[in-house]
Amino acid sequence: MRITFSCQNTNAEPWLQGFRDVLPGVEINEWVSGASMADYAVVWAPSQSLFDEQLKLRGIFNIGAGVDALMRLRLPPAAQLVRLNDAGMAVQMAEYVCHAVTRHFREFDGYAKDIALQNWTFRKPKLRVDFPVGVMGLGVLGSRVAQALKQFEFPVRGWSRKAQNIDGVTCFSGNDELVTFLRGTRILVCLLPLTPETENILNADNLSCLMPQGYLINVARGAHLVEKDLCSLIDNGVLSGATLDVFRTEPLPKNHFFWEHPKITITPHTSARTLRQDTIAQIAEKILAMERGEFVPGVVVKTRGY
Amino acid sequence: MRITFSCQNTNAEPWLQGFRDVLPGVEINEWVSGASMADYAVVWAPSQSLFDEQLKLRGIFNIGAGVDALMRLRLPPAAQLVRLNDAGMAVQMAEYVCHAVTRHFREFDGYAKDIALQNWTFRKPKLRVDFPVGVMGLGVLGSRVAQALKQFEFPVRGWSRKAQNIDGVTCFSGNDELVTFLRGTRILVCLLPLTPETENILNADNLSCLMPQGYLINVARGAHLVEKDLCSLIDNGVLSGATLDVFRTEPLPKNHFFWEHPKITITPHTSARTLRQDTIAQIAEKILAMERGEFVPGVVVKTRGY
Repeated sequence: MRITFSCQNTNAEPWLQGFRDVLPGVEINEWVSGASMADYAVVWAPSQSLFDEQLKLRGIFNIGAGVDALMRLRLPPAAQLVRLNDAGMAVQMAEYVCHAVTRHFREFDGYAKDIALQNWTFRKPKLRVDFPVGVMGLGVLGSRVAQALKQFEFPVRGWSRKAQNIDGVTCFSGNDELVTFLRGTRILVCLLPLTPETENILNADNLSCLMPQGYLINVARGAHLVEKDLCSLIDNGVLSGATLDVFRTEPLPKNHFFWEHPKITITPHTSARTLRQDTIAQIAEKILAMERGEFVPGVVVKTRGY
Repeated sequence: MRITFSCQNTNAEPWLQGFRDVLPGVEINEWVSGASMADYAVVWAPSQSLFDEQLKLRGIFNIGAGVDALMRLRLPPAAQLVRLNDAGMAVQMAEYVCHAVTRHFREFDGYAKDIALQNWTFRKPKLRVDFPVGVMGLGVLGSRVAQALKQFEFPVRGWSRKAQNIDGVTCFSGNDELVTFLRGTRILVCLLPLTPETENILNADNLSCLMPQGYLINVARGAHLVEKDLCSLIDNGVLSGATLDVFRTEPLPKNHFFWEHPKITITPHTSARTLRQDTIAQIAEKILAMERGEFVPGVVVKTRGY
């Protein structure tokens, strides 16, 4: 079995060694133009030429949760494209989102400012019932995030393309129910896949439906958000702020207004990182299942885009 | 029925009105010296003279979780002293502790410093298995905190005076098992009641048993911690830092070294605030149960101190 590996911004050697350890006999190398035909590809933001040359691929494994970058390429039609399902990312996402929600709800940034001035000052506790959290996207990551938020006794709502049913979460679906979902949401968490339907979904029209003093947490893709719409709504006092982990251009360009906006907290696309060991184990297991002709979870429906 | 109310740093009027709303016919006023004999007292840090005068009290209700301040007073021996059980505090505590654990584990302070310098920099993800969290005190608050931490897949350990059994939490008890508990703990969370046995328990001997680069979160009482021991261990690189919500003297005195220590995050005793509506409802229910001669949860065992 031959695997070709092509992951941007990734030190290949420990990955190659990891696959050799769990798949004895495998031949795995970093992809270069002209390489022998491989059966499987393990990729993150690969170049089009890889797919133009590697015509015998049976499976393409993306080492992230979102496959939007791959969907913009021409892929060998016979190859199955496989998402990473979880691999330690769901718990990181739950942790990141709960941290951001708590920081906002408990006003920890305000407390930190008081403490820096040596002020011992109380803020009036807020009521959870006034802070319904709405999660857009109820896949592996979104549903885990919703579960985690429930534990902290926030009213939790969810919105997805197709109707879902999650215990203790008020679920909405489809375009028809989007506005109803948004109108009852104070803290909006975006965990949607990026598709032509969801691009720019976080725009002025939709964001201004949120409850007064709404707050946005975007941990999906930068292209979900119309950046200047968010800024206007915050600067006009309609929204109270945002936590953003993803951006239209990454790394975020120097001098972008997000860097220093006092009501926007940013992190460098670190909400849920790919954990090498877990990822290698998961992909190896899926490759073996494919070899045996078995069902493999996480295969992308290409017409749907995720 | 007559209730006397004496809560420091509390605006009495909404409390008095709240009790009148839920206990029709009750006579409730702020305590002043010479007031008529009351049946019940609702207190937070009251003066000794209240108890010296109010000899007919049958129940004393503390509007916080810890009764250590009351245990230092002479109380009418016939009066039952009743702790608040939960009243919205457990979820706040779970939230506060998870936030502090996540901030440390995910290095969010480090990321914030990078972002302030417009640096888009990744930090190597750490493994949860290397960060066992140990909770000291497994009462209403401690066990809720342990449950919340489990959801984020940290190995969770617990230590209490008497043996406890919490699903998914490795439990230790008594002085004999304290060192074993500490040696396997990297992030230590203190939620103990303050008693003569637990005062100064967070001292150099015990804190230096933690795993290398241990971290302390104290949300119990300031007197659990020997402040200078903590600072020496942090300054010598044995511990990596601390989050402290409680202090020996509150408000924290001006110029105390905690205010500006770069590795110590402080908040002004705000980890779990008393929520008025929930508290009034709970105390009113307990008063009615006492009037009917029924069992009341949260009665303090005076010889035990909590």
